[in-house]
Amino acid sequence: MKISPDLISGAVSAMRPMIEDIFGQMASGTLDPVAGITRPSYSEQENFAHRLLADIAHRHGLDVTQDAAANTYMTLPGQDRNAPQIVIGSHLDSVKQGGNFDGAAGVVAGLAALLVLRELGVRPAFDISAMGIRAEESAWFQVSYIGSRSALGQLPDGALDVTRVDTKCSLRQHMRDCGGDPDLVERRHAHLGKHNVRAYIEPHIEQAPKLVSDNIPVAICLGIPGNFRYANARIIGEYGHVGTPRQYRRDAAMAAADLAMSLDKEWQAQLGQGRQMAITLGRFHTDSALHGLTTIAGEFNFSLDIRAYEQDLLDHMEKRLAEIIERIEKERGVRFELGPRRSAGIGHVDPGMCEALEQCANELGIDHTRMYSPASHDAAAFAMAGIPTGMIMIRNDHGSHNPAESMSIDDFLDALKILVAWLIQQADQK
Amino acid sequence: MKISPDLISGAVSAMRPMIEDIFGQMASGTLDPVAGITRPSYSEQENFAHRLLADIAHRHGLDVTQDAAANTYMTLPGQDRNAPQIVIGSHLDSVKQGGNFDGAAGVVAGLAALLVLRELGVRPAFDISAMGIRAEESAWFQVSYIGSRSALGQLPDGALDVTRVDTKCSLRQHMRDCGGDPDLVERRHAHLGKHNVRAYIEPHIEQAPKLVSDNIPVAICLGIPGNFRYANARIIGEYGHVGTPRQYRRDAAMAAADLAMSLDKEWQAQLGQGRQMAITLGRFHTDSALHGLTTIAGEFNFSLDIRAYEQDLLDHMEKRLAEIIERIEKERGVRFELGPRRSAGIGHVDPGMCEALEQCANELGIDHTRMYSPASHDAAAFAMAGIPTGMIMIRNDHGSHNPAESMSIDDFLDALKILVAWLIQQADQK
Repeated sequence: MKISPDLISGAVSAMRPMIEDIFGQMASGTLDPVAGITRPSYSEQENFAHRLLADIAHRHGLDVTQDAAANTYMTLPGQDRNAPQIVIGSHLDSVKQGGNFDGAAGVVAGLAALLVLRELGVRPAFDISAMGIRAEESAWFQVSYIGSRSALGQLPDGALDVTRVDTKCSLRQHMRDCGGDPDLVERRHAHLGKHNVRAYIEPHIEQAPKLVSDNIPVAICLGIPGNFRYANARIIGEYGHVGTPRQYRRDAAMAAADLAMSLDKEWQAQLGQGRQMAITLGRFHTDSALHGLTTIAGEFNFSLDIRAYEQDLLDHMEKRLAEIIERIEKERGVRFELGPRRSAGIGHVDPGMCEALEQCANELGIDHTRMYSPASHDAAAFAMAGIPTGMIMIRNDHGSHNPAESMSIDDFLDALKILVAWLIQQADQK
Repeated sequence: MKISPDLISGAVSAMRPMIEDIFGQMASGTLDPVAGITRPSYSEQENFAHRLLADIAHRHGLDVTQDAAANTYMTLPGQDRNAPQIVIGSHLDSVKQGGNFDGAAGVVAGLAALLVLRELGVRPAFDISAMGIRAEESAWFQVSYIGSRSALGQLPDGALDVTRVDTKCSLRQHMRDCGGDPDLVERRHAHLGKHNVRAYIEPHIEQAPKLVSDNIPVAICLGIPGNFRYANARIIGEYGHVGTPRQYRRDAAMAAADLAMSLDKEWQAQLGQGRQMAITLGRFHTDSALHGLTTIAGEFNFSLDIRAYEQDLLDHMEKRLAEIIERIEKERGVRFELGPRRSAGIGHVDPGMCEALEQCANELGIDHTRMYSPASHDAAAFAMAGIPTGMIMIRNDHGSHNPAESMSIDDFLDALKILVAWLIQQADQK
């Protein structure tokens, strides 16, 4: 089926009022009392977002289902309902006091794409689903890709017993409260996999300012970083008097600063060799119950996230981390307790999908570029499961994970046009 | 009046049971419910310590008075009650969950010395007072030497309106509640000064492990550090997503680590040139309400204390601090807000007193050394007021400002012997 770029553009542009309305309802239903948007993983607010989109899909005649992890699927049925489907997905949770678009934009794009396909009279050879994914933001359970990995039958052992940082209640309980079936998830039932998904595509806002500074509305993603993380690391030193000479100190705050600067120096060296990566010490703090102006810090708490696009660089950083810690322990008389380690694999995108998406953008006359995703995404979980995966990044100002996150609907519509054109191109294939 | 070293030693050693009893009562009356000792400045617990010693002094026939800042004086009257007196002083407050000896040991030594003098039949030419000083620990009001500077008529403007970190209640109110007269303090009435104090001496535990590692019970102090401080400094960056590339970050935690390591490097360079100083970042933390594993820190809070024994070194460090901050602001896109600056002058000890104290130690056969005090002490306020000042440092294990602080009574008695011998030497002088 061949539909002209102009027809696609027109049909997508006509969706603008509905899309603005959906984003408006999504925001007003999940406002944080202090600032921005808060949709915790497996929460009432996340449920609200799932219900909002599911109701719209239902009203427009799409199939609506849930899986054992309470992910939502809104499906345009194909001619062969048993053929492997295309999944357009992203997540509907947010960090505390985050923005309205991180995650949600991709699910709204998926739903809108299906409505445009129907409007254009496209009857695909196979099902196409827009998937609202649960619990992507690891800030809540400190586990990556909970919803997508559950759907893929790959949630790691023990993850269901992890507790949410605010409620102290287990993932198992939260999943059940949201209508999921954690026992089925635990048995690693693969609701999705290579056997029934032909491709996964995720539109997502960019979480760095590259597209803003380059003045380009969309990018085709070249890869999703893998990471390793220590969510609850500690440094044990010795509390002491402010006047203690340097050689007698076991200052946990200075040891932490030494760690941060040593890692930062390594980071700069890697960037100098053109190797992309990122290091974040998000929690980085003395103990508020014991610290003070006249007391040397005897303990320090921190989180560490190191991400990169090449496994050998991740391996190198892990080795460097161990060396740096060994040196600091020796020089500063402190002891590191890194605590539980978690990691996520690198998400490689499918080169064929990449080229096809670029071709669609060219035909539509939409300015675009290529970029590595700075952030992690559910797409990485699908890529690791062996499913051909692609991503479309949408320009977004002020970064994400904060209330000032800002995506223009024009840019969103450009991404949606590329998505629709690509789906139409795929729709005939058996 | 000449009294043999043996007689002095015997009389001091006989005080052991009483001294152990006093320290025991002091500890059991001011135990912290969690760990160690807590005697906040101008608190019920501080009052308890003052009352405990005042009652003992009163029972033994010493004069007991208070000044406008509610400091306690326990006085052995001299032959000429109008002649300038000797003051033996230290403080009776402690940090939160500190030890029993930091401060209190000096006041107990003063009281015990007066009782020994009386026992030995010494009738000095002038009054000798043991002074229990209020509010030396700046952790509570973040102002140095409140009790001693009030007594000297030198409390800085505005200090009475500062609030205690735990109660959020003003120094003025706390002083009044403890029986003081803050209005008189505000008018800078000099209860003590060059006109009526011939010398000030302060026994105090060492707050570093030098005497422990050198295996020497006491030291004669060569000087007390001056300092400058920022109790509530901030770094403003920008919260952002964990995947944001380095060049787009404004990471307040990395900026803080850069500050700490730059200062630490300068510190090591100064030590390499034999110049003693200390740098402490006691509070050093991201915001617990907003920080997280997947969020770049957009704000950082810290306290800074820099201390040294030479004014030009303090001036140099202040200049270096400004240069370091300027560089970090430029390189890391953050902004520093140092907040209110406070400082304390360097306390120079009297060389004649130093020599006299060493001579007493020699005559008594007590092993001793010389050292700079690592910590600040009320002695610095007396020295800055132009009063000849000396200090005797007592060996103490595990540092101070923590529950593990540990001084042996044997070492305390050695310091007391030196103090008593020196007082007897002075007692005849007109």
